[in-house]
Amino acid sequence: MVQGFSIRKIEPRDYLGVIAALNELTSVGTVDIEEFSRVIEYWKSCTVQDDIPVYNPYVVVDDATNDVAATGNLIIEQKLIHNCALCGHIEDIAVSAKFQGKKLGKFLIDYLTDTGLKAGCYKVILDCDEKNVKFYEKCGYSKAGVEMQIRE
Amino acid sequence: MVQGFSIRKIEPRDYLGVIAALNELTSVGTVDIEEFSRVIEYWKSCTVQDDIPVYNPYVVVDDATNDVAATGNLIIEQKLIHNCALCGHIEDIAVSAKFQGKKLGKFLIDYLTDTGLKAGCYKVILDCDEKNVKFYEKCGYSKAGVEMQIRE
Ligand SMILES: CC(=O)N[C@@H]1[C@@H](O)[C@H](O)[C@@H](COP(=O)(O)O)O[C@@H]1O
Ligand SMILES: CC(=O)N[C@@H]1[C@@H](O)[C@H](O)[C@@H](COP(=O)(O)O)O[C@@H]1O
Repeated sequence: MVQGFSIRKIEPRDYLGVIAALNELTSVGTVDIEEFSRVIEYWKSCTVQDDIPVYNPYVVVDDATNDVAATGNLIIEQKLIHNCALCGHIEDIAVSAKFQGKKLGKFLIDYLTDTGLKAGCYKVILDCDEKNVKFYEKCGYSKAGVEMQIRE
Repeated sequence: MVQGFSIRKIEPRDYLGVIAALNELTSVGTVDIEEFSRVIEYWKSCTVQDDIPVYNPYVVVDDATNDVAATGNLIIEQKLIHNCALCGHIEDIAVSAKFQGKKLGKFLIDYLTDTGLKAGCYKVILDCDEKNVKFYEKCGYSKAGVEMQIRE
């Protein structure tokens, strides 16, 4: 918990705040509110087991102003290995410029990690820049491997 | 292409061969054929857009014997970033012991990568051990970051 902030699922009204936060992470492009709402609806439509959602997109909100301070997603994958286990993937973690340095990133990661482990994931993984390794170590993560990519 | 081998989607009849291959990668535990078939059915039920499946589980098969030589999955994630782009995740790549050294791993990775890029993914990513980096570089991949994990 961070005093004065709450965490909840992303809603269409978070459009401007989420896009602003994501722009701190990478290029978002021109996503309009219809596209934003469509993605949220799609995310909601996916379940992996019983009541376990595949996508778990969250926002950390400033209680005083309702501003979106941070956002992130947890995606739950169904595997065959480890007795048909679930595996959590933390993706697209971003903290808005004016809310950085308030430990909201750690609050968000702790929450998403907990959500994944409570859903029964045998592990939760994420990919990050070398410069963010220390931050994730403070959240209880350790190095597991190398992320490789190919781009179109 | 590798002479004498074909690639196709996983089916329930691949049960023994897929489990044997996955046991080369990590611990599979005791997955029976009902559980195996249920996971395949679940995978089939997930779509991300129009006719694009979320899960793309494949087997490389020996044409002469129908043995499963290798298996791997491509999972397609719906993002908000990059104009609501798709991102491909290659997971659970395994080659059966008796089929190693025949370049079937590269054949499979090339196929899954191509499937992801053709589906419109702006990138395809995967996590691997440092010792497999050279192999993935031969498949056109390059280092992108660090994989971090937390285990239950
Ligand atoms: C833990 C975390 O948030 N990792 C993010 C990943 O989720 C995101 O998709 C990517 C975007 O980078 P890109 O725009 O270069 O693909 O950056 C980081 O790896
Ligand atoms: C490219 C590739 O196949 N990477 C695999 C990953 O997909 C798999 O889930 C994991 C299992 O390892 P674990 O049993 O230690 O979680 O090993 C490797 O990282």
